[in-house]
Amino acid sequence: MAVAGRPRSDESHKAILQAAYDLLAEGGLAGFTFERVAARAGVSRSTIYRWWPNKGALAMESTLGSLTAELRISPDLSPIENIHLRLRRVAEAMKGPTGRIIAGMLAEGQQDPDTITSFTEGYLEPARGTMRALLRQAIDEGYLPADFDVETAMDVSFGSLYHQLMLRRSLEADWVERLTHFMFGRALLR
Amino acid sequence: MAVAGRPRSDESHKAILQAAYDLLAEGGLAGFTFERVAARAGVSRSTIYRWWPNKGALAMESTLGSLTAELRISPDLSPIENIHLRLRRVAEAMKGPTGRIIAGMLAEGQQDPDTITSFTEGYLEPARGTMRALLRQAIDEGYLPADFDVETAMDVSFGSLYHQLMLRRSLEADWVERLTHFMFGRALLR
Repeated sequence: MAVAGRPRSDESHKAILQAAYDLLAEGGLAGFTFERVAARAGVSRSTIYRWWPNKGALAMESTLGSLTAELRISPDLSPIENIHLRLRRVAEAMKGPTGRIIAGMLAEGQQDPDTITSFTEGYLEPARGTMRALLRQAIDEGYLPADFDVETAMDVSFGSLYHQLMLRRSLEADWVERLTHFMFGRALLR
Repeated sequence: MAVAGRPRSDESHKAILQAAYDLLAEGGLAGFTFERVAARAGVSRSTIYRWWPNKGALAMESTLGSLTAELRISPDLSPIENIHLRLRRVAEAMKGPTGRIIAGMLAEGQQDPDTITSFTEGYLEPARGTMRALLRQAIDEGYLPADFDVETAMDVSFGSLYHQLMLRRSLEADWVERLTHFMFGRALLR
């Protein structure tokens, strides 16, 4: 990833993501505007619009960079164990600022559908893509039956996790344990 | 239920619920205030505060009366069929104003935790109580194994249903069908 002669626009891109992350960590989505991000990053608002269509998209990308890095797949674990680990790490991340930002986006999305689109495209669909691959691998390797309903399993696991977040319930490891066991039953214990 | 000499306060109580329902159906939670409900119902604001601590509690009770009536348990159906029917009817109701009001409450609850409490106490816990009784009956009657995780089944079914609502996805009958099948598998088909 070390690119020689990195262009100036790459620096601005990074500065915007960092400024956005800092503002969100300080005050959540409430006072989060392109104007304030631009001032802190030392760029113009039009520079931000070049890469992000709206503040939801920018909020998503700036907060989820660190989460994505934590969610690497471990080749030493079975696909079911990898899913379990991912759900535990997502639940853990939801306890902090990332959780408040996601809850804030889902809340704002009830007035502004573009925010839902940003959330879905920027986070939910990529996360489902990884989960889908792991579930299919689990079927291929015989951990789950061939007729296991992959799409519903994702609606159920992401859905119940985000719902706990919206209800402001704590997402403890034993809740993730029960969810994983409910979804996969004895497959987890093989 | 026909009580002779119904007290005056009972009339006010009904007028408030009706006024609240009408206001919510017209404009959702955005312009919903005790002041406007009081004006429409022809009562004082303090009369409303006598029965409802905040607007979330009143919104909940006024909109969910009709839903609760639709969710009667049918003695001719198995407990699993009753659960399936309830989830179908809840999903159907979510497509209309009730769904927008619930989504609005969950959104508002991200700023105001009292709204989450109203939602939980006024709707979610009673709904879970009925569902819990049906799941335990299903275990007692052998439709589900004795170690079936009743609480997680409710987190999963309500959670994924409300999450679809927050993502503004349509809650079609075939989605409920897949959810029920995922939760109960072959038990449904007995």
